[in-house]
Amino acid sequence: MLTREENELLVRTGPGTPMGSFMRRYWVPALFSEALPEPDCAPVRVKLLGEKLVAFRDSSGRVGLFDERCPHRNASMFFGRNEENGLRCVYHGWKFDLEGNCVDMPSEPPESNFKRKVKIEAYPCVERGGIVWTYMGPPEQKPEVPDFQWAEVPASHRFATRHIQECNWFQAFEGGFDVSHLAFLHKGDTPDGGIRTLPKYYETATTDYGFVSGSGRDLEAGKTAWGANIMAVPFHKIIARPGDVPIGVHAWVPIDDENCMIYSIEYRPHRPLNDEEMEASREWRYIHAETEPGGDHCLRNLANDFMIDRELQKSGKSYTGLKGFGIQDCGIQESMGPISDRTREQLGTSDIHIIQLRKFMLKTLKDFMAGVTPPGLKADMYRVRSAAFVLEKGETFAKHAPERVRLDVPAMAK
Amino acid sequence: MLTREENELLVRTGPGTPMGSFMRRYWVPALFSEALPEPDCAPVRVKLLGEKLVAFRDSSGRVGLFDERCPHRNASMFFGRNEENGLRCVYHGWKFDLEGNCVDMPSEPPESNFKRKVKIEAYPCVERGGIVWTYMGPPEQKPEVPDFQWAEVPASHRFATRHIQECNWFQAFEGGFDVSHLAFLHKGDTPDGGIRTLPKYYETATTDYGFVSGSGRDLEAGKTAWGANIMAVPFHKIIARPGDVPIGVHAWVPIDDENCMIYSIEYRPHRPLNDEEMEASREWRYIHAETEPGGDHCLRNLANDFMIDRELQKSGKSYTGLKGFGIQDCGIQESMGPISDRTREQLGTSDIHIIQLRKFMLKTLKDFMAGVTPPGLKADMYRVRSAAFVLEKGETFAKHAPERVRLDVPAMAK
Amino acid sequence: MLTREENELLVRTGPGTPMGSFMRRYWVPALFSEALPEPDCAPVRVKLLGEKLVAFRDSSGRVGLFDERCPHRNASMFFGRNEENGLRCVYHGWKFDLEGNCVDMPSEPPESNFKRKVKIEAYPCVERGGIVWTYMGPPEQKPEVPDFQWAEVPASHRFATRHIQECNWFQAFEGGFDVSHLAFLHKGDTPDGGIRTLPKYYETATTDYGFVSGSGRDLEAGKTAWGANIMAVPFHKIIARPGDVPIGVHAWVPIDDENCMIYSIEYRPHRPLNDEEMEASREWRYIHAETEPGGDHCLRNLANDFMIDRELQKSGKSYTGLKGFGIQDCGIQESMGPISDRTREQLGTSDIHIIQLRKFMLKTLKDFMAGVTPPGLKADMYRVRSAAFVLEKGETFAKHAPERVRLDVPAMAK
Repeated sequence: MLTREENELLVRTGPGTPMGSFMRRYWVPALFSEALPEPDCAPVRVKLLGEKLVAFRDSSGRVGLFDERCPHRNASMFFGRNEENGLRCVYHGWKFDLEGNCVDMPSEPPESNFKRKVKIEAYPCVERGGIVWTYMGPPEQKPEVPDFQWAEVPASHRFATRHIQECNWFQAFEGGFDVSHLAFLHKGDTPDGGIRTLPKYYETATTDYGFVSGSGRDLEAGKTAWGANIMAVPFHKIIARPGDVPIGVHAWVPIDDENCMIYSIEYRPHRPLNDEEMEASREWRYIHAETEPGGDHCLRNLANDFMIDRELQKSGKSYTGLKGFGIQDCGIQESMGPISDRTREQLGTSDIHIIQLRKFMLKTLKDFMAGVTPPGLKADMYRVRSAAFVLEKGETFAKHAPERVRLDVPAMAK
Repeated sequence: MLTREENELLVRTGPGTPMGSFMRRYWVPALFSEALPEPDCAPVRVKLLGEKLVAFRDSSGRVGLFDERCPHRNASMFFGRNEENGLRCVYHGWKFDLEGNCVDMPSEPPESNFKRKVKIEAYPCVERGGIVWTYMGPPEQKPEVPDFQWAEVPASHRFATRHIQECNWFQAFEGGFDVSHLAFLHKGDTPDGGIRTLPKYYETATTDYGFVSGSGRDLEAGKTAWGANIMAVPFHKIIARPGDVPIGVHAWVPIDDENCMIYSIEYRPHRPLNDEEMEASREWRYIHAETEPGGDHCLRNLANDFMIDRELQKSGKSYTGLKGFGIQDCGIQESMGPISDRTREQLGTSDIHIIQLRKFMLKTLKDFMAGVTPPGLKADMYRVRSAAFVLEKGETFAKHAPERVRLDVPAMAK
Repeated sequence: MLTREENELLVRTGPGTPMGSFMRRYWVPALFSEALPEPDCAPVRVKLLGEKLVAFRDSSGRVGLFDERCPHRNASMFFGRNEENGLRCVYHGWKFDLEGNCVDMPSEPPESNFKRKVKIEAYPCVERGGIVWTYMGPPEQKPEVPDFQWAEVPASHRFATRHIQECNWFQAFEGGFDVSHLAFLHKGDTPDGGIRTLPKYYETATTDYGFVSGSGRDLEAGKTAWGANIMAVPFHKIIARPGDVPIGVHAWVPIDDENCMIYSIEYRPHRPLNDEEMEASREWRYIHAETEPGGDHCLRNLANDFMIDRELQKSGKSYTGLKGFGIQDCGIQESMGPISDRTREQLGTSDIHIIQLRKFMLKTLKDFMAGVTPPGLKADMYRVRSAAFVLEKGETFAKHAPERVRLDVPAMAK
């Protein structure tokens, strides 16, 4: 249970809000590279952290991301012409390059130097792992681009989708660290038949990029088996999955305070995904969710009750009657309302990871507001992935987990 | 014409409002029994007096009605599993019985007693006359279930529908006691060809359940013919209809402040409805209104101008060009806006029943707020129905009407 | 760039606002005459300056325009019966004539004189040029009906359409006086192949009906060619078009603060429009915009990105990929948002006409609020049209333009 003020701190990400200012210190996924398939192709609308923007790919193949509104008289740059290394507003022909400079202003007399005074708000972009990332914060504080393994592997090793979730980003983010729901919400839908036992231990180890979140189960002879999920600021997760399966990844990027874009990625560090691995994803059985053709809205959504199949739910073959992990998570999290009212919750011991996530974010935010340098500003901090390992009696998760999830340590060590 | 404050008093029914607190002292129709056709069937959403709820039928066949939100973390119980005598949230498996007790909390360790501290807000339900009624008020003040005749007769004697009216409940309630509109709005659509003369006298007699509202017309030799409608708190009406026809009943139940659910019932006290009687209802010519398949929204609604037939209206065969009494009432009442602005009205002598209804409700509400026991808390107070009778010169409606509408008095006495 | 206060002054037109009070001093286009095709036809809804109204044509063929709400109990007069010289509310049969008098009140006893006390708010109407005009201001200040030439010519000489633009009226009005956009937004879509050079001079000459707005281009030997557009209060424009083409006219009438109705008219003063002239209009290539069948909403609209054809835009055959001048203007102006934020603009020298329009309106409004008689209250002040003419060195636009646009002066004088 949170106070109203704490809840507001966590959920608001618009310009000038504490969480919004914090998130603007990081590189943020803005869109798939393939949405801008070639130089000088049509611009696309992007909404991030409450800001309306337009993305385009210039003649050199580089990506620009602008304020949607032309600084002249607010016309939308979405209708603009993507011409030789710049996007041109169609109202009066003002043209801007991807740094936001006005490079042509044909409506003014040739001798005018007005164009040198005019800039459009532009955010720098980079492309990594098939995604255009942008940095919306103070230029002088631009950090390194996070060095996620999934973004470094060849495209053949990776399968990525995105979809809109119609609720606040933090609701979805919390869902990613809610361990106990795995034994219920997704029951019947896991590859192993759906029985996922509850962990006995819930631990968290703070790191320089966020934290490692561990679920422990007793083995024989005082040994404990741990699954370790990664939480990387500001909204990333690398999922610990049992068995020899691809690594799963999520980023929950705020669109505005009542919608977020979920990027869902599966990858193999060292080989292409094979046909079997692709099948589950293509049938929307795992973390991905089917969207309407050409868009990011889920085919199964709040307006149609996520197409719940009550017969299937009744049969017990699926706990929910909802198709696929992705929609199960989406569905239950959206059902809490656009912004969940955390002042009326009742949390138990199995919610400890949720509590730890909130504490971490509130503490980090408070430090940030007090001037402390935020975590995760170096690229190599992100060279981690989820892991599963066994610890002997007397060994603590907090001591071992941060090392075990490093890329240079085998992922499933005994 | 009312003041803004009076208008607000009458129209607001959410938790904590005066009218909302008043209504919560009565049993309220929540849904049709048949919407929960069998034990452990799928739960359904219910919205009542501004509260989002979920109804379900448990394994024993009893009906439960809950807060839609799981007390754990606000997930919607609508997506829940209706299992052995309880509804289970699919997020973490918390299960609640129909008293709102948490009877299983599998996400917590077996030794935990946390579940004993957790309750979901649950409202008691009873089933009468094919309808699930609920009581949303203080448990210690739960009244008797009203003993309406229509709810006591066999199902064969009764025809009941419901539909959503897209405006405030009180607007619709007022319509039920507006006598003079019968001569206009419904002209051309009554079984007798549509001519309904205006009454000469408008009287009201207060009773222990509300009031009897009388319309009088002079007969020969100083006799007066009276039609007597029943107003029973908080939102019931039994309709006085001329001729040997089934008795008509309405309840206008607030969904929220801009929508209400109209329950419309026709019944014969002593025999099944026959084919002729059913035909008018099935063709939507009388008080019922056709809804979209599987839902409660009217097929003819504000968005499509209630499918007004201007040719028919022009012809004079129908005064309005709207099909059926139900849609004529709905249509004209919704056309006043979601909440009618009663500060700008101009009322005449034929509006006396409207004025009396408002005065009665405002007075009753004021008394209620001052601690006076509200009317209608005993079951047998409701053993009344509409009536038609003739009074001799010198006899007053106020003196005779309350007795004439009692069930143990013949309905159409001379 | 304006202050927030100035912006509010210009855009708000509801009852009681400064601009709303100003506009209510003029005759305002309300609907096409043909929308009320015959005496006693069905009434239609009209929304003007934020007011919900109902228009009808009475038995004598005259047009009435009312408050949508019956003064009795707020029922919508839209559902009313249009009977012998009056519109009758179907709820209780109250009937009003086009002056707003209650001429029948059958729900009240015959001896009642209540109807004499009741009036519905009614606005006087006249029909000119195929349009119903209304006056919504103080009766004692009713001005003469503007004597526009396009409204005086025979119907065969004129082609008129209207469509809704989903943004504030002033945004659209400004667009009408934005000269420099012609060289960009509409490029490729003008009859002469689309090249429209930028003017060198921007001048404005204030008149008794508004102002003349001139664009000047140098000719040989110190001569200047001028195009002169008419701005007539409160929202009219007569368009200066090069070549021997019909005269174009717009009126941007506020529906509410986020929508306006654009009336678009082409006419020939002295002869019928011929087939060639009609063809461009019928194919929506010029100022008209195609609407959904039976309605005023554009087929190409904000929700479908105005059906932008990116291939066509890329090809350069059309600058925008939007079909027709009308939609190009609509599209770019709506893209600024429902109410453009003029506090964040950056205006150049080519925006001088926009600046002059704002200054004129703000000055006129300030004078009006201080009690100064507003311009344009005499019919014959409007006997002007756009013009093109050449001035010799030393002659000023301000001196000559007001006379050159008078109807009694040849339009294209040397």
